[in-house]
Amino acid sequence: MESNRQATARAHPNIAFIKYWGNIDDDLRLPANPSLSMNLDGLHAETTVTWRDDLAADQLTLHGQVEGGAALERVSTHLERLRERLGLRNHADVVSTNNFPMGAGIASSAAAFAALTVAAVGAAGAAISERELTTLARLGSGSASRSVPGGFVAWRMSATHTDSYAESIAPPDHWDLVDVIAVVSQAHKAVGSTQGHRSAATSDLQAARVAGAEARLAQCQQAILSRDFAALADVVEHDSNLMHAIMMTSRPPLFYWLPPTLTIMAAVRAWRTEGLQVCYTLDAGPNVHCICVRSDAERVSERLRALSGVVDVRVAAPGAGAVIVRSS
Amino acid sequence: MESNRQATARAHPNIAFIKYWGNIDDDLRLPANPSLSMNLDGLHAETTVTWRDDLAADQLTLHGQVEGGAALERVSTHLERLRERLGLRNHADVVSTNNFPMGAGIASSAAAFAALTVAAVGAAGAAISERELTTLARLGSGSASRSVPGGFVAWRMSATHTDSYAESIAPPDHWDLVDVIAVVSQAHKAVGSTQGHRSAATSDLQAARVAGAEARLAQCQQAILSRDFAALADVVEHDSNLMHAIMMTSRPPLFYWLPPTLTIMAAVRAWRTEGLQVCYTLDAGPNVHCICVRSDAERVSERLRALSGVVDVRVAAPGAGAVIVRSS
Repeated sequence: MESNRQATARAHPNIAFIKYWGNIDDDLRLPANPSLSMNLDGLHAETTVTWRDDLAADQLTLHGQVEGGAALERVSTHLERLRERLGLRNHADVVSTNNFPMGAGIASSAAAFAALTVAAVGAAGAAISERELTTLARLGSGSASRSVPGGFVAWRMSATHTDSYAESIAPPDHWDLVDVIAVVSQAHKAVGSTQGHRSAATSDLQAARVAGAEARLAQCQQAILSRDFAALADVVEHDSNLMHAIMMTSRPPLFYWLPPTLTIMAAVRAWRTEGLQVCYTLDAGPNVHCICVRSDAERVSERLRALSGVVDVRVAAPGAGAVIVRSS
Repeated sequence: MESNRQATARAHPNIAFIKYWGNIDDDLRLPANPSLSMNLDGLHAETTVTWRDDLAADQLTLHGQVEGGAALERVSTHLERLRERLGLRNHADVVSTNNFPMGAGIASSAAAFAALTVAAVGAAGAAISERELTTLARLGSGSASRSVPGGFVAWRMSATHTDSYAESIAPPDHWDLVDVIAVVSQAHKAVGSTQGHRSAATSDLQAARVAGAEARLAQCQQAILSRDFAALADVVEHDSNLMHAIMMTSRPPLFYWLPPTLTIMAAVRAWRTEGLQVCYTLDAGPNVHCICVRSDAERVSERLRALSGVVDVRVAAPGAGAVIVRSS
């Protein structure tokens, strides 16, 4: 391999309609249940990887700041797995930026590890299938697997690394849905997702949630394919409630909701009974993702802004998959 | 039986430490799991029953107002069962008052049906054991069975009417606990408990909650008997979280929490890590019952009053069982 090969990849975060919570293998991030998400256009991580001969260790620059500690370690652990797959011995210089805040329920690690994986593979000039890329991204952050393909994406579960991959079930332009994100806090969450996933099995209720996930995914996929908003809303809110039920009944419990979170959830349910095509879903954080049809997005945004405790509203349409934007 | 026999009974509401949610038999109110509670001194229902020859139907006066409709019907249905057991054909005049608001998470129906049952039996001059009284009260409102015996009370589960009874596991003076109730709303709840119990089985998670209830009850009973607050707090908060997890994942979901509910729950958890002996539990309503040791009750009350959204704070010590206060 030529030295100093460089590539820059861009990847979007995604919002899960059917949630990933808990692993059957924490090391390989093999999920306890399949999940399904929509990539979020307009929000992205952009990551440049340069494989260099002259580095004694990987290095990470995040938003212009050189990182060490846990952040570098997690990236370096992931790069080690990529080196193994790519047959590389070089270390990497990684430079990354997000255009959205981290740690507040907009899955930043998904976009970050999708972009890192695609950039690292691109910089190595390796020909690796999208399916395999999703499994590699998964090793860094489970939900990153869903940010590699475009549009609406299902992540299959399996006890085998190669078979727990993500694939697009519909392109971004399949359905004009919008995620109107009500931001109630931009603080980092107290308990990160990696630790959260490990706690899922401590809830007595997790097995029952997992048992129904395949059926919920099928209902959700069908709702997307047939563009049936009522069916989508039903399963999306229910699946979000189920995940937070697991979190709250873990030992110790995890409460990600803040008071305005409850206000927004109740408002969304009420707006839907009034005829707006909107439903909510929450990741491991207090911000509320209000999924709605494009024609209701403006009204939903306005109403959200009028609610006490909403500090910002962001709007995202279905996004593309991870792509190389520059390479040399 | 002599005509116009009258008795007045007083009964306290109770706060469940191990929750009752869902029945295996809705008609007989045979619960899906055993439960455990503490009666609440200072709060009570006081009910006078007069069995009269000159009435063509039962009549109900609540807080000085003659009631018809659903309230009368529920009382009359209960009286019908008591008539059957007592061998009576008379109708009853029922006059009742509560000294606390109904429908807001302080189980008003528990105190009401405990007092009604004890007054009706007392007015008939019948000798019925406490154990049987608890089963009769249960027919009117499940948790009413727990308001018949005194102090700390366990309600056993069984598929048989006579064997699903409540009994005291410790008298009121066994442990100087206090329930500091943070009232955040005095509104009637949108979905009453009877309807809520029917919905419990629609949650995929209910079976798993029920499966662990016997073990949680044993842990709670042991914590009470040994006055081990840390063990009590652990199981009481967990059991409350489990019940609300079932509610939120029922179809349709039931959300009883309001934004201040979340604030208080988080505060209580934080105060406990700071050394206060306090934990929370919530019934089917937004008000937060903060169970604490007597020596921390003052501090807990003050801190609760300082929280935004708390409209009132009530303090209740362990209460006695239902008693006849007058008869003629």
